[in-house]
Amino acid sequence: MTSTSLEPFFYPHGVAVIGASQDPSKLGYGLARNLVQCNYQGAVHFVNPKGGQLLDRPVYTNIAAVPNPVDLAVLLIPAMAVPQALRECGERGLRAVIIASGGFREIGSEGTALEAECLNIARTYGMRLLGPNCIGLLDTHLPLDVTFLPPPAPVPGEIAFISHSGAICAAVIDWAHGQGFGFSRLVSLGNQADINETDVLAPVAADPHTRVITFYMEGVSHGRRFVDEASRVVRQKPIIVQKVGRFAGGQRAMASHTGALAGQESAYEAAFHRAGMIRAETTEELFDWARALAWCPLPRGRSVAVLTNAGGPGVTAADALEANGLHLSDLSHESCIALNYILPPVASIHNPVDMLASASPELYAACLKILLADSGVDAVMVIMPPPPMYAASAIAKAIIPLIQSADKPVLVCPMGERLVHEAVELFQAAHIPDYRFPERAAASLGIMAQRVEYLQKVVKDGILSNKQLDIDPESVRKILSEAEKKALKVGDTFKFWLPPKTVNQILAVYAIPTLPVELAHNPEEAVSLADRLGYPVALKVASPDIPHKSDVGGVLLNLEDAKVVALGYETVMRNTLSACPQAEILGVQVQRMIPPGQEVILGAVQDPQFGALVMFGSGGVEVEGLNDVAFALAPLQPSDAEELLEKTWAGRKLHGYRSLPPADRNAVLDILMRLAKLATDFPQLIEIEINPLRVLSEGQGAFALDIRVRIG
Amino acid sequence: MTSTSLEPFFYPHGVAVIGASQDPSKLGYGLARNLVQCNYQGAVHFVNPKGGQLLDRPVYTNIAAVPNPVDLAVLLIPAMAVPQALRECGERGLRAVIIASGGFREIGSEGTALEAECLNIARTYGMRLLGPNCIGLLDTHLPLDVTFLPPPAPVPGEIAFISHSGAICAAVIDWAHGQGFGFSRLVSLGNQADINETDVLAPVAADPHTRVITFYMEGVSHGRRFVDEASRVVRQKPIIVQKVGRFAGGQRAMASHTGALAGQESAYEAAFHRAGMIRAETTEELFDWARALAWCPLPRGRSVAVLTNAGGPGVTAADALEANGLHLSDLSHESCIALNYILPPVASIHNPVDMLASASPELYAACLKILLADSGVDAVMVIMPPPPMYAASAIAKAIIPLIQSADKPVLVCPMGERLVHEAVELFQAAHIPDYRFPERAAASLGIMAQRVEYLQKVVKDGILSNKQLDIDPESVRKILSEAEKKALKVGDTFKFWLPPKTVNQILAVYAIPTLPVELAHNPEEAVSLADRLGYPVALKVASPDIPHKSDVGGVLLNLEDAKVVALGYETVMRNTLSACPQAEILGVQVQRMIPPGQEVILGAVQDPQFGALVMFGSGGVEVEGLNDVAFALAPLQPSDAEELLEKTWAGRKLHGYRSLPPADRNAVLDILMRLAKLATDFPQLIEIEINPLRVLSEGQGAFALDIRVRIG
Repeated sequence: MTSTSLEPFFYPHGVAVIGASQDPSKLGYGLARNLVQCNYQGAVHFVNPKGGQLLDRPVYTNIAAVPNPVDLAVLLIPAMAVPQALRECGERGLRAVIIASGGFREIGSEGTALEAECLNIARTYGMRLLGPNCIGLLDTHLPLDVTFLPPPAPVPGEIAFISHSGAICAAVIDWAHGQGFGFSRLVSLGNQADINETDVLAPVAADPHTRVITFYMEGVSHGRRFVDEASRVVRQKPIIVQKVGRFAGGQRAMASHTGALAGQESAYEAAFHRAGMIRAETTEELFDWARALAWCPLPRGRSVAVLTNAGGPGVTAADALEANGLHLSDLSHESCIALNYILPPVASIHNPVDMLASASPELYAACLKILLADSGVDAVMVIMPPPPMYAASAIAKAIIPLIQSADKPVLVCPMGERLVHEAVELFQAAHIPDYRFPERAAASLGIMAQRVEYLQKVVKDGILSNKQLDIDPESVRKILSEAEKKALKVGDTFKFWLPPKTVNQILAVYAIPTLPVELAHNPEEAVSLADRLGYPVALKVASPDIPHKSDVGGVLLNLEDAKVVALGYETVMRNTLSACPQAEILGVQVQRMIPPGQEVILGAVQDPQFGALVMFGSGGVEVEGLNDVAFALAPLQPSDAEELLEKTWAGRKLHGYRSLPPADRNAVLDILMRLAKLATDFPQLIEIEINPLRVLSEGQGAFALDIRVRIG
Repeated sequence: MTSTSLEPFFYPHGVAVIGASQDPSKLGYGLARNLVQCNYQGAVHFVNPKGGQLLDRPVYTNIAAVPNPVDLAVLLIPAMAVPQALRECGERGLRAVIIASGGFREIGSEGTALEAECLNIARTYGMRLLGPNCIGLLDTHLPLDVTFLPPPAPVPGEIAFISHSGAICAAVIDWAHGQGFGFSRLVSLGNQADINETDVLAPVAADPHTRVITFYMEGVSHGRRFVDEASRVVRQKPIIVQKVGRFAGGQRAMASHTGALAGQESAYEAAFHRAGMIRAETTEELFDWARALAWCPLPRGRSVAVLTNAGGPGVTAADALEANGLHLSDLSHESCIALNYILPPVASIHNPVDMLASASPELYAACLKILLADSGVDAVMVIMPPPPMYAASAIAKAIIPLIQSADKPVLVCPMGERLVHEAVELFQAAHIPDYRFPERAAASLGIMAQRVEYLQKVVKDGILSNKQLDIDPESVRKILSEAEKKALKVGDTFKFWLPPKTVNQILAVYAIPTLPVELAHNPEEAVSLADRLGYPVALKVASPDIPHKSDVGGVLLNLEDAKVVALGYETVMRNTLSACPQAEILGVQVQRMIPPGQEVILGAVQDPQFGALVMFGSGGVEVEGLNDVAFALAPLQPSDAEELLEKTWAGRKLHGYRSLPPADRNAVLDILMRLAKLATDFPQLIEIEINPLRVLSEGQGAFALDIRVRIG
């Protein structure tokens, strides 16, 4: 079903309220009242078996009796009655129904069965369902309000809100009245029997009044579809999400470091990052940031000028800017001269520009004009603790026209309450984001800069194909099916760590360099193995009976060519035989020797929501302790792999650090992409971990020293 | 001067306003008006050369004419006139003066000179000064208001506020009106020509109405005095501080890892921690937390019950609690039975307790009663998004009496604005901390738990004395003076890295184990050195002419006793002489050999504000990259050293981790305390760094392998 099937939800020609009530204490009355009072321009129909009149309209006793046009029904009737009502809607030819009623999946198994029945009926009639157990939706511009929330309804605005929680919708709508912002569209998703968070994204984003999409999210149903859909939307309009339920879901029991660290949250974090979404930790952040993104032009960069009438708030602002990755602009010589000309001699003409407590509305405006004209300034924060000599509202009036015509974002901080109240209202009416304290304004500016950088990011490098990478996944399929057969033969449940040989074969197909240990049975074989593995090599006697092989002369290191390898084989055998004549000797192990280098961990797991997830970071046994790791959704574009490296100290130090020489970053990037490919191509590989990957100096490559792969 | 000299500021018998003005647009009028309108019970006097009448009182033309009682003067006159007015105050017998006027240090060198002159005059007359460039102080309970802020004045409350910024005072007082809390005392410190942040702490804390002290801080003048004073106060009343200027001060140029990481902020962080203060990042946090601490009983622990009428906000609360180090209480069997009895069947009786949207005021009250009675519940968060069937205010009325009589903290979240407005006002009037969203309530509960744990902490272990530690600092003094003499002889500036020998001598006095390399000139000497250093030892030929000593048989490892050492000396000499007959041989180096172990970094620097500061963490070359370090003020009690270890991964893994065996933590704790002692005893040692300290397995000790000490 395409998203066009959702059109009747957002642009209905007629709406039927099934369960409309004449009793003002009932939610069915609230729903009817909201639909009438919102000034919806389509046809409004009420349905209730009791019939009668409601709000000067007839009440039909059933949906069959409702005249055209009607293409959306809202059900607010007891759960048990919903299936029958749904059937009647289907018969009446409706294709869109909102089930506002509760009493479904959220109450247990009985409700779950009822919900499944509803979905079945909907499918039979080709109907789409929103809910059940939701408060409905509204569009302030159409306008349309099919919620049962008590008034006041939200005022029209530019922010859309999609929520998994109806109570959060109710709270946020009410709270927004005090914060001075409105909404464009609002969708309460409820139990998501049919329509889910992914389905509504595009239709909500398509609304021309919506400039920012905000999201209260408890989870995602189809991870990759959501990421794909969100990625498309985000290029046009920012999406800010508050994802909760972080600590609710138990961590999966996994055996590797990667598994232990890859909690549900790493996958969500990686998914939001991949989609270019912005994640808020609190509801206040969600709307602090949304207002800034909805109402302001984007800054060009991270350089901010602060205009204040007092020192303390200027220092607070400077701290908060730095803490949010922004910096104070160096004002141009021209700006300094201009400021110097109009400010009192003891004012600070350097950023933060402190005009002193005597600053008049005219001075605020004149200074702001100078700062906005400075090409080194990307954004301005205007701070006004209660000005002792002037009304804050007079300052607001003086600067609002400047801010509205500026091509740079200006965020304001009227600090206080009663003394700045009028100024706050003026700013809000003018759609200028206001914050009581500089800390929250700075965080919002940081998010705006993040948004700009996201939009500037070149994302055209693309995922390299297996063909481009010269990978033949088919041969891995064969290797795995071999391994499976063997495992079944020995009675295994086929959920196990693959044997080292199989692992090495698989990695070889994906051209991930390993250091396999091979067994030679004679000097010629040792030489041919060494030729294949690469020099220098180490030789080690293979015997179950000799624990300390070097003590008996059974180990030779750093053999540089075929000649010394052939000689070495003989030497090892001779030494061992003379020292331990009784020992069983299987042959001589040959392994390529590599120099020391930096060591990192690479891993991959399969997330139940989002599929293949790769990890990179500091390796060794202390992986969980150091927690210097980062995750990304697989597969990776070259730029994704670059980003993943830069997120960790392990990745940053590959550039070299102090006495640590630069390591072969390109080899790591290449192996990361190949590992991500492998995890994507074979979801049955539920855990893959390379710990450590030894990274040699530039141009010398990187080698997986220890690899574990679990299949399931 | 003792803090009793500040008594006239807080309990004046009479106040003279010098610069009182009849012009309502002047600040001198505002000051006079506030003093009269605040209902101050002492004598109020106005002084202005123009004389006349003001607010039904005579205006004296000079302070000499003011009748008794008068023991506090507030000056709001042009800066140039302040010195003369101060002299007149001194002559009149005043001992306490507030200079509200600006135009001093903050405007540059001319103002700085004027400020110094004022301080001189004050000292001459034994007067204490508050300011200049401040907005004065107020006490809402006395009452006394000697600020010039526009009305409304703050309402009486339990929170004291001390601020380095007058503008922040003005903003916060005004903002508090909208937040529903008041103040007990408020002090604006201004330029601190005389009275500083440390001086006012005790007098403000002594106020019986003050339950919490909040602080907007730009810096500290006398670090250790502040820490001592704050530590005393904090045992009685919590201090919450917002310290700004974090990014303003340039980092000191230091040569060691410790120096590079020990920014100004590490010292402030360590100082606040030592004093038991609570640090807020934002002004909103400052007062979110202050309200909770001022109005609620402290919780016994970190176990929290959440009561809600909807699922979404419950999940948000659960997340936020976990994020703040709290956890959801496991409700007792009795609680579950009781909840089950009163709640609808589909409600959730497990924490978060979700009563569903239909929850009535009576149900809220009944459930809250059950949760408060559960001995496993330390605190309760009550959440109310706009209840669809009841007025939020009715719920507030039903639960307020329960909350007020509870011996556990209850924080409430009326989520919304207009629909919860009346409830919010009821809660604020009842002094119950309210938050619009669960995230901020959870953060406040986290701070309350932190406060409880601080109070429970046993702080009686105390700093061990040098005598207890068997340290003779006098001998270090001698060693340093020797080193200084030598340095001066070679023309050094005596700000340099101490030579290794001196370093080893100093560490030996403080019994910090090192692995010195000693030179033996014969077998007997080698044996006696080995006896002293401890076995096993390594022997190495000492010769400037032999680069690869082991190639010539010049190195012997793991010599276990005196006999093999004596033999070894001969062997090394013989091998070397036969291989390199021409080489100059100085003797044989003897060094104790120790097994591998965990390696950590220990360091100390001298902070300009707070003096000796010690660092502990992950060592090696990557110290700055990993940034796994923590700081504490020196000296350390055993419990301080314990805490310092537990703050870093390097310290936590000393307990053992996976294949890493437990290391000798006690040795590290001992060395940390000794290093802290050394840095405290000798502030001229501006940087000390042990990197690495190798920590052997339990009971085997720890050894400083590389030590650098800079003197200056």
